Amino acid sequence: MHSTNDFLFQLFLIFVWAKFCGEVFERLRMPAVLGEILAGVLIGPFGAQLVAPSDAINDVAQIGAIFLLFTVGLETHPKDLLSVGRTSLYVALAGIIVPFACGFTYMMLREHAAAEATFVAAAMVATSVGITARVLSDMGMLQARASRIILGAAVFDDILGMILLGVVAGLATPGGARWAPVLVTSLEAVAFTLIMIFYAPRVVRRMEPGLERMSTPDAPLVIALAICLGLSYAAVKIGMAAIIGAFFAGLAFAEYSPRWNLRPRVLAINEFLAPFFFFSMGARLNTTVFDGHLLVSAVVISILALLSKLLGCGLPVLRFGWRTAAKVGMGMVPRGEVGLIVALVGLQLNIISPSPYALVIFMTGATTLVAPPLLKMLFRDDGANRRVTAEERSVAM
Amino acid sequence: MHSTNDFLFQLFLIFVWAKFCGEVFERLRMPAVLGEILAGVLIGPFGAQLVAPSDAINDVAQIGAIFLLFTVGLETHPKDLLSVGRTSLYVALAGIIVPFACGFTYMMLREHAAAEATFVAAAMVATSVGITARVLSDMGMLQARASRIILGAAVFDDILGMILLGVVAGLATPGGARWAPVLVTSLEAVAFTLIMIFYAPRVVRRMEPGLERMSTPDAPLVIALAICLGLSYAAVKIGMAAIIGAFFAGLAFAEYSPRWNLRPRVLAINEFLAPFFFFSMGARLNTTVFDGHLLVSAVVISILALLSKLLGCGLPVLRFGWRTAAKVGMGMVPRGEVGLIVALVGLQLNIISPSPYALVIFMTGATTLVAPPLLKMLFRDDGANRRVTAEERSVAM
Repeated sequence: MHSTNDFLFQLFLIFVWAKFCGEVFERLRMPAVLGEILAGVLIGPFGAQLVAPSDAINDVAQIGAIFLLFTVGLETHPKDLLSVGRTSLYVALAGIIVPFACGFTYMMLREHAAAEATFVAAAMVATSVGITARVLSDMGMLQARASRIILGAAVFDDILGMILLGVVAGLATPGGARWAPVLVTSLEAVAFTLIMIFYAPRVVRRMEPGLERMSTPDAPLVIALAICLGLSYAAVKIGMAAIIGAFFAGLAFAEYSPRWNLRPRVLAINEFLAPFFFFSMGARLNTTVFDGHLLVSAVVISILALLSKLLGCGLPVLRFGWRTAAKVGMGMVPRGEVGLIVALVGLQLNIISPSPYALVIFMTGATTLVAPPLLKMLFRDDGANRRVTAEERSVAM
Repeated sequence: MHSTNDFLFQLFLIFVWAKFCGEVFERLRMPAVLGEILAGVLIGPFGAQLVAPSDAINDVAQIGAIFLLFTVGLETHPKDLLSVGRTSLYVALAGIIVPFACGFTYMMLREHAAAEATFVAAAMVATSVGITARVLSDMGMLQARASRIILGAAVFDDILGMILLGVVAGLATPGGARWAPVLVTSLEAVAFTLIMIFYAPRVVRRMEPGLERMSTPDAPLVIALAICLGLSYAAVKIGMAAIIGAFFAGLAFAEYSPRWNLRPRVLAINEFLAPFFFFSMGARLNTTVFDGHLLVSAVVISILALLSKLLGCGLPVLRFGWRTAAKVGMGMVPRGEVGLIVALVGLQLNIISPSPYALVIFMTGATTLVAPPLLKMLFRDDGANRRVTAEERSVAM
C-alpha cells in the first residue's frame, strides 16, 4: 500500500510542478520545455530534494520520450522531407560534422578522455525538431523555404545523430571498438531508416481497408500505438534509440493522421507523459558540480554549440543568400531531447562523469534559450507574410 | 539497458496481445474487456508463463485503472448521479449485507473459524466497478438509468466496503476493534464524497476564465489531468480506492468536457493504458492451487458471490422492473482489487489459511470473467437505444 501511495504522489507532484514551471516560462516568452526541465532541477535530488523520481516514474518518463517523438513524426510527411531532401541532407551532414569536430577538439584540449570527449561531442550534434518547429509554427513561417530546409535537415539530423549514437555507444563497449558490430549496427540503422521512410507509409496505406473493418473501436489509434511500441522496441533491438523507432512510427502514420484524427489524441497522451520525461531529465542534473571552473567550460561549450551549427548548417545554403543561410543555421541551433539522451546513455555506461553531463545539460538549456529569440529576429522582417498568417490563424480559431 | 529492453518488450507484447484478444472477443460478440483479462490469464505467470508483468507494468496498469474511471466520470454528470442517489445507496447497502451474510453462513457451515468466515465474507463484498464501467462504456450505455444507479452504488459500495474492512481488521487485531479510527476514516470518506459531488463542479466552473487565460496550450486538459492525479492520491490518503478519486475528478469536469474536448483525448490515454490494467488482473489469477475438493468450494463461493450481489443489488430496484433489477445486480457482480486486499490482509494476519485465500482469488476471477458477457446480454436487448448510440458514435468519428 505504501509504495502505491508514493507512486501516485510522485505522479501528481511531478506533473503539477513541471506544468507549473512550463506555464511560468511560457509567460516569460521562453520555451515551456525549459521550464519543465528546470522543474526537475529545482525540486529533484540535486535541488530542494523534495522528490527523487522512482524507477516507476523513470519508466513512465521513457514512455513519455517515445510519445514525444511519435508526435513529431506524425507532423512530418515523408514527401516534404524528400522534396528538400538533398539540400537538407547536406545541411544535416555539415551540421553534424562541424559541431562534432568542435566539441571533440575542445574536450580533448581540456584533457578529457577520448571516449568522454566523443560522447560530449555526439551530444552537441542533434538538433531538437520540436523546439525549432514550435517557434516557426508560432510565427506562421512553416511554409518558408528556409523552414522546409530546416525541418528536413532536422529530421535527417535526428536520424544521423542516432546512428552516430549507435556508433559511439558501440565504440564505448568494454573491449574497445569492435568495428564489425558497429558496421552491422550502422547498416541495420540505415536499412531500418530507408524501409521506414520509403516503405512503411505504403504498408499503412495498404492496411487501411483492413483497419476500417476491425471490430475494436478506434482501431486506427490502437494499431498506431501498437506499431509505435513495436518500432520503439525494434529500434532498441537494432541498437538505435527507442525514440527513433517511435519517430518512424509517426512518419508512417503521418499521411493518415488527419483522417484518423490521430494527432490530437496522441498529443494528449504526450501531454500527460512528456512532463515526466523532461522533469526526470532535469532531476538528473547535478547542480552541485558547477563551480566557477566548470561554468566557464559550460559557457564555452554553449557558444561552440551555437556557432558550429550556425556555420555548419549555414554554409551549404549560402547560395540562397546570407539571410537564408543564417535562418537555416539558427534554426538548427536548439539542442534537446536527443542530446540529453546521448549524455544520459554515456552517464549510464559510466563513460562520462557527472560534470560533462552537466555541461551537456547546460549547453542544451543555453541553445534552447538563446535560439528562439534570435530565430524570431531573423524571420521577423518577412513581416507581410507573418501578418497574413496571423490573421489566418485568428480566423481559423 | 537490459531492463529498458524488458520494459519496452513487455509494453509492446502486453499491449498487442491484450488488444488482439480483445478484438477476437469483440468479433465473437463478447466483451473486449474479457478478452483482455483472459490475455493475462493465458500468457501470465500462471498460464503459459511467457510474461510476468514487472513492477513497472503494474504501475502503468494502476494509471490505466485511474484513467478508466476518469473517462467514465467525464461521461457522468453529477446531477444524473444525484437523481439516483437514494436508490444507489439502497443498492449498495443491500449489495453489502446479502453477500456478507451468504459468505459468512456458508463458511460457518463448512466449519471454519468465525474470524476466517468473517474475512472471506468481507472479501465477497466490494464491487470493482472498473469492469462494468468498461462494458457499459463500450456499449455506449453509460447514460442508461441502470448504469447511473450502478455508478452511484459503486461510490457508496467503496465507502461502505472501506468501513467494513476497517471494522473487520479492527475486530481481528488483539484487543478488539478500535472504533475511533474507523469512525474518523468513514467521516472523511463521506465528507470527501459530498465535497466532490456538490462542490467540485462549481470550482471547475469558477476556474474557467482563468483556464482560458493560461499560456500553456491545452490548459484545460493539463488542469484536468492534474486534478485527476491529485484526487486519486487524495482518495488513497483518505483510505478509499484511487479509482474513486479519479471518478470524482471526471465528474467535476463532466460539464465542461464537450467544450474543452476532453473526452476523446482522455479516452486516447485510456486506450493506451487500460489494456495493461486488465492484463495484469488476469495475470494475477492463480489457477494452480486447486484440487478437486477445493474446486467445489470455490465454485460454490463464486455462485454465492454472483447470486448474492444479483439479488441484494437487484431487490432495491425491483420497482423499475425485473430487467433493470437484473442489470443493476449483474453490474455489481464483478469483484476486484478490494476483495483481494481484504483476503491478503487476512492471510498476513494469519486469520485465514491459504485455501480460503485461494477461494477468494477464484471468486474474484470467476465474477470478473462471468459478469461481462451476462451484462452485455442484459443490455443488448435495448436494441433501439444501442443502434442509435452506435450511429452517434460513427457520426462523431
